[in-house]
This record gives sequence, structure tokens and C-alpha cells, in this order.
Amino acid sequence: GAMAAEKLAGYRDRIRRELDQVVDFWLKHSHDKLYSGFFTCLDQDGKVYDELKYVWLQGRQVWMYCRLYRTMERFHRDEILEAAKSGGEFLRRFAWTPSAGSPGKCAFCLTREGQPVKVQRTIFSECFYVMAMDELARVTGDHDMQVKFTSVIEVLSTLTVSVLPFRVLQTSERVLQVHAESVMDQLVRWVRVDPAGLGRPQLPGSPPVNSLAEPMMLLCLVEQLAEGRTDVTDKYREVGSWCVQQILQHVQRDGTAILESVSKEGKELPGCQGRLQNPGHALEAGWFLLQYAVQHGDEELQRTAVDKFMKIPFQTGWDQEHGGILYFLDVDGHCPTQLEWSMKLWWPHCEALVAFLMAYSQSREPALLDLFSQVYDYTFSHFPDTEHGEWFGYLSRQGSVELDFKGGPFKGFFHVPRCLYMCERLLDGLLEASCDA
Amino acid sequence: GAMAAEKLAGYRDRIRRELDQVVDFWLKHSHDKLYSGFFTCLDQDGKVYDELKYVWLQGRQVWMYCRLYRTMERFHRDEILEAAKSGGEFLRRFAWTPSAGSPGKCAFCLTREGQPVKVQRTIFSECFYVMAMDELARVTGDHDMQVKFTSVIEVLSTLTVSVLPFRVLQTSERVLQVHAESVMDQLVRWVRVDPAGLGRPQLPGSPPVNSLAEPMMLLCLVEQLAEGRTDVTDKYREVGSWCVQQILQHVQRDGTAILESVSKEGKELPGCQGRLQNPGHALEAGWFLLQYAVQHGDEELQRTAVDKFMKIPFQTGWDQEHGGILYFLDVDGHCPTQLEWSMKLWWPHCEALVAFLMAYSQSREPALLDLFSQVYDYTFSHFPDTEHGEWFGYLSRQGSVELDFKGGPFKGFFHVPRCLYMCERLLDGLLEASCDA
Repeated sequence: GAMAAEKLAGYRDRIRRELDQVVDFWLKHSHDKLYSGFFTCLDQDGKVYDELKYVWLQGRQVWMYCRLYRTMERFHRDEILEAAKSGGEFLRRFAWTPSAGSPGKCAFCLTREGQPVKVQRTIFSECFYVMAMDELARVTGDHDMQVKFTSVIEVLSTLTVSVLPFRVLQTSERVLQVHAESVMDQLVRWVRVDPAGLGRPQLPGSPPVNSLAEPMMLLCLVEQLAEGRTDVTDKYREVGSWCVQQILQHVQRDGTAILESVSKEGKELPGCQGRLQNPGHALEAGWFLLQYAVQHGDEELQRTAVDKFMKIPFQTGWDQEHGGILYFLDVDGHCPTQLEWSMKLWWPHCEALVAFLMAYSQSREPALLDLFSQVYDYTFSHFPDTEHGEWFGYLSRQGSVELDFKGGPFKGFFHVPRCLYMCERLLDGLLEASCDA
Repeated sequence: GAMAAEKLAGYRDRIRRELDQVVDFWLKHSHDKLYSGFFTCLDQDGKVYDELKYVWLQGRQVWMYCRLYRTMERFHRDEILEAAKSGGEFLRRFAWTPSAGSPGKCAFCLTREGQPVKVQRTIFSECFYVMAMDELARVTGDHDMQVKFTSVIEVLSTLTVSVLPFRVLQTSERVLQVHAESVMDQLVRWVRVDPAGLGRPQLPGSPPVNSLAEPMMLLCLVEQLAEGRTDVTDKYREVGSWCVQQILQHVQRDGTAILESVSKEGKELPGCQGRLQNPGHALEAGWFLLQYAVQHGDEELQRTAVDKFMKIPFQTGWDQEHGGILYFLDVDGHCPTQLEWSMKLWWPHCEALVAFLMAYSQSREPALLDLFSQVYDYTFSHFPDTEHGEWFGYLSRQGSVELDFKGGPFKGFFHVPRCLYMCERLLDGLLEASCDA
């Protein structure tokens, strides 16, 4: 009734204000006006303390700017579009490092000027690159942008012949989308067919693993690329369904636990690796699955997403003593070997907020709103910096700020604004529905 | 006077008891009687919680057992020698992974049975391998051992032709020593001539770095290999002196700070990497340098070791509020990006104890004994587990136990017993001298 609506409106208004403030913080402090791209190592008050440019975070910031520009009227501003385009160009010019081996890899980290510093032997730089390029394709129809990007593609094609499955393209309005899809196709091959191109040696003591992050990221990309496009939806239908199956393999111990890594056959792995739980990550998988299930009208998957990937990780991960979600746990109760296991990180809380609010929006089960409220109370009383804006990222188990920067090698313009954006839209939907009622 | 001697005797007795207890803990819990080698992932009470065998820790345990066997009468026991030999054989059979690229690399981590799980693109597995093999060479003169090792070398030679600069050896009593030296020579080439064999791609944004750990480890190996051997001392004289120069390059900011990474030319590097301080590591470098300086009668280096590599890191790293030595710091006072920067780890405290006691033994400067006492009080009131023996490794900034295991991927039978062993000997020396006085 009115009480519930008032509560939801309170959440929505706070979240809306917070999103405005967070966007302003990054617009003001993170843009490199000299070389383009984004600084992400930002002190408590926004000062740059390191000029390295982390490719994950470059891609995520381009994606987030474009998504806000495309879907929220108050962010449909030239300033935001221009920042996204400039970041996209930086990525297209500098992210690829052909020297790291055929068929080329995106670097993990670049100098301010764009020289590669480090290349990871994983798929994630490329994943965030695809997210960025696809969302950029959706907001740029202008001829200028196309011409710029086409020339970049030509340069890359010359440099790297067969580095990537670049189709030689004429200037067309689908140039970015086609490029994003070609990288996506490479990612699918790395994960499903042959990981050799990633550069990790295959060692007899280390058989291939189904790591929760990989099918999650690919599923996220399928959703990204397919949105509103029938042909692309068809093209990636089977990949999407494979990703869901791979994610479901992480439900273990007779359905009582989500484990972060399992064998390719879906069996529990030995030792610490096999017993590791990352509740925030499972919760993120939960809302990815729920979104997919709703789109496909799959009610069983909807229940699994909520019961297995939201309720269980929350029960496991919530710190009964100090509140907040623990970073890592061992399913048998051993102490994890990760030094940071007991810290409270911002992003698992972001994922939990999205997960429980999305689940509540679907089912209207009051217990799910209570879980959202519980996470909301901890999150908004611990993470936002009331002095300089934006959120702290890393708290001790007891809830004190342990690392006071706003951005770092793994914290950029992504989890906080994505959470606030998703929650604002979900709350708008709920409030609209309650007005209609 | 008598007061001081009494204090020193108190330290010595406690340290001696502690060393006995720590040795017993690892003898009892860490031996794999089925496949040989050592389990290092040991719970609070010694139970194995993961069967992976970390090569650094295998090598360190072999070294430590041999050193205790060789130099301390109460540890000159068959049980200890046999454990060291069996660990050494495990290493010799399984550590090398030719498939990781020519000229072969030691794995970082093996399965219980000895299959390679992970190979790092650094020098450290090989360094601890050399330490182990050299110390093993010093304690095994028996024919049985020689025959076993020779056959292993033959197998390896067949497998890997030119993988390592194995000289084809007849059974001789110097077989292990020669092997250790040949790996050492490869290490020196990797660090000084060509790192390509380590497998890290050279990237234009990431010029080669002088990382404190590399010259420290090589200096430690020079001391290890040269002990009591005139020819080897001559062979590695220039390498040792080069290591010292490389370590001294880390004195920066007009002599007011030790930085963990500098350029190959000894200049400060940009960003977080350039500003990083690891006080425990600098303190360890301090006693390596002091030991070297004393051996070479270099009084200037002796002063530098104490003033720059001990007093400065301690002033920087000691937590005025909660006590104990912080793990990482930024020289300009920014927050480090390492999530664990504010934790109190056992090993920096071990290194500080050795450093200050060694420095005091040399100079008899009372302030250095005070520093030892300050670290001793924190260490012995926080790290030892009075219930199950051995030491906790990882405390929060406030000093509570955050990870309760006794051994893990980076904590084995090394820093604690090496510290106790060195301190016991130093205290014996001091007490003997005070009796003579």
C-alpha cells in the first residue's frame, strides 16, 4: 500500500541523487583531456594518483556513459556522448596488442599515452571491450564517428592481418557492431573451443576449469549484443543457452552451495579452489540469470536464479556479527587463503541490491524486499563518502574504510553507477505499477 | 651488565623453546608419507586443508631442515635428514616443467603427486630450488643419495636436452653442488642478460624494472653457495658485488626512503609502482647487506645497511597507533592499492627481529636492542598460537587473527624457523661474549 510506496519512493530519490553525484564525480575527475581515455586511479577527493589506464575500466566507463546517454533522458547530454566516443577511440587505437601472440590480445593495462604495460591471459579485457563497442554502436549514428572508426579498423587490419577475424568493412553504419561481434566470436572460441590463444600453458596438473566468471561474462555479452536485434538474438541463442547451463553447473552440494570454480564436467574440484565461494559474484550471476529467465519465460530458471543464486549466497555471505557481505568463504568452513577474504567490498553490495530488487520486482515476495532493505541499509550507511562524493570501495570486516581511494586498478565508473541505474529503473517501474494499482 | 645479559638470556630461552615447538609442528603435520614432499596448507591445528605442493615452500623446507641438521646439534637427527632428502628428491623429480618453454622452468605449484599446476614467469621457484639443493649437498655425503640423484639427473637430461645447462655428470660427491650452481648460472643470465626464458612478453609500456626481490635473492644465493668454498667465492664475487649495487639503487628520495621497485638505471618509476614501500622486505635486505658487509669488512656498507635498510623502513612501517609493521606503504602517503596493505604479516616481523639483533650484535648500539625488544614484544604477544603451537601469519591492522591457518600458499616452514634459528645463534654469541667480559 501507501507505506510500501513511500518506502520505495524514498529509496528511489536517494538512489537518483546518488547516481547524479557519481556521474558528476567521474565527469569532473577522470577525463584525460590530453591523450583521451580515462584516469581511474582517483584519490578520495578525485585527484589522479596514478596515470595507468586499465582496459577493463576504460571499456566499462565507455559502456556506462553510452548506456546512460541512450536510456536516461537526464544523461542524454553531449558531454557524456563525447566522453564515451573519445574513450572508445582510445580503446580502439591502443587496446590491442598483437605482439602478445596471435590472434592478438587486448592489454590489461596501458600507459597514459596508450602503450601496453600488461597483458592478462584471460578473456576479460576483450569482454569489456565488446561491451563498450556494442553500446557505442547503439549511440553513434553520426558519419564523423564512423569515418574515424573505419580508419582505425583499416590500420588494425594492416597491422595484424588475421589478428582478429576483422572483416574488411566499407564505411557502413554497422561497422562498430560488426566489429564487436567479431571479437565476441573470438571470445566464444577461446572459451568453448581452444584457449591456446590466451597464452596460458596447458599443464597436466591443471585441467581446464569452469570458472563462474567466464559463462557469466559471455551471457552478459549475449544479452548486450542481442538487445532489440532479431538476427543477433538468433545468432547467439545457442551460446546463451550454453552459458546458462555452464552457470548452473556451479550449484553444488545437493543444491546447497554455489561454488566459484567447478570442473568442465560440472564436478567439484579438489582443495581450496574447489571449495571457494564468492557470494557477491554468485549474486551477480543471479540477476544475470533472472533477466535471461524472464526474457525467455523460463519459470524454473527464474526460481533457480532467486533460490540458488541469491538466497543461498546471501545466507552464506552475510556477516552476522558485523553486517555486510564477506568477500570469500570456504564451503567447508576453512579459512580462505585470500588475505582479503573478510573485507567488505563495494561491488558485492551493488550486485546484491540489483539482485534482490529485480527479484522483488518479478515476484513481489515481501521477503525479497526485506533483503534489499537489509543490504541497502548497510550499503548506504558505509560506502558513500559524504565529504567528497562517490563511494569508498574497501572496508575492513568491522566496516571501517581501509582503502580510501574512489578509483583504482579494479574500481572504476561501473559497479556503483550500474547498480544505481538499474535500481532507479526498477524502482520507477515498481512505483508506476503501484500508482496504477 | 648483568641486567642486559639476563634480558638476553630470557629472549634466548623463549626463542629456543619456540624453535623446538615449530620444528615439531612441521615434522608432525607436513610430511606426505605416500608421495613424499611436504604439505604446506595446514589448518590451525595442523590438519591438511589442501594437498597442493608449492615449490617455493618445498625448497625452503628442504633448506631449513638441512641447515638445522648441519649447524645445530639438537637438530642433527636422522628424522630431519631423511625428511630433507625425501623432499629434495620430490623437488628434483617434479619441479622442472620443460613444457613451459626452453630452457625449462620450475613450476610454482604441483599436485600432491607432482604434476605441474602453475608456472610463474619469475625467478623465485628456481631460487628456492638452488637453496635447497646446495644445502642438501652440504649434508649428504652418503653414496645412496648420490646414486639416486645421479639417476634423476640422467632422466632429466634425457627428457630435456639442453633444458638446463646440466653438465653430464659421473657419480661424484659434488653432483648436487654442481647442479645447484648450474641453475644459479641460469638465474644470473635471466636477471642480468636476457629474461626471455622467463616467458614474460616485453611490452613497450613496461620497461625492465629493478625489483628489490631479484638482487636480494641472488645475493642470498651467492652467500649460500660460497660459504666455506674458496673457488665458489671467487666465481661469484662479481655477481655478489653487482647484487649489492642493485640493492643500493633502492635508496631513493635523497636517502630518506627505500622503494621496492626502481628503473634499471636506479631512477624512481612513475605511479603507484614507483612509490611502493614494503618495510619488511627492506628490513630483510638490510640483514642480507649487513651480513655481506661484515664478511667483506665494508664499514660504509655496514652503516648503510643499518641506517637506510633498517632504521628508515622501521620508522616508515611501524604502526604508531596499533603497533606492528604495516605490509605496504606509499612514499607520498597515498593509500596503497593492495587490499592487504594495512595487515600485519608474520614475516616482516621475523625479518625485523633478525635485522635488529644482527645490527646490535655488530655495533652494540643500545638503541638497536631497544628496536629488537619493541618488535619482539609485539611479535611474541600476537603471532604464536599458544593452543596448537606455531604462529598465525595474518593479523588485521588492529592485531586480531584474520587468517587462522599455520601454513598456506606462501607460509611454510621458513620465515618463522629461520628467524628463530638466526636469533638463537645471535643471542648465544652475545651471551658468550658477555660471559667473557
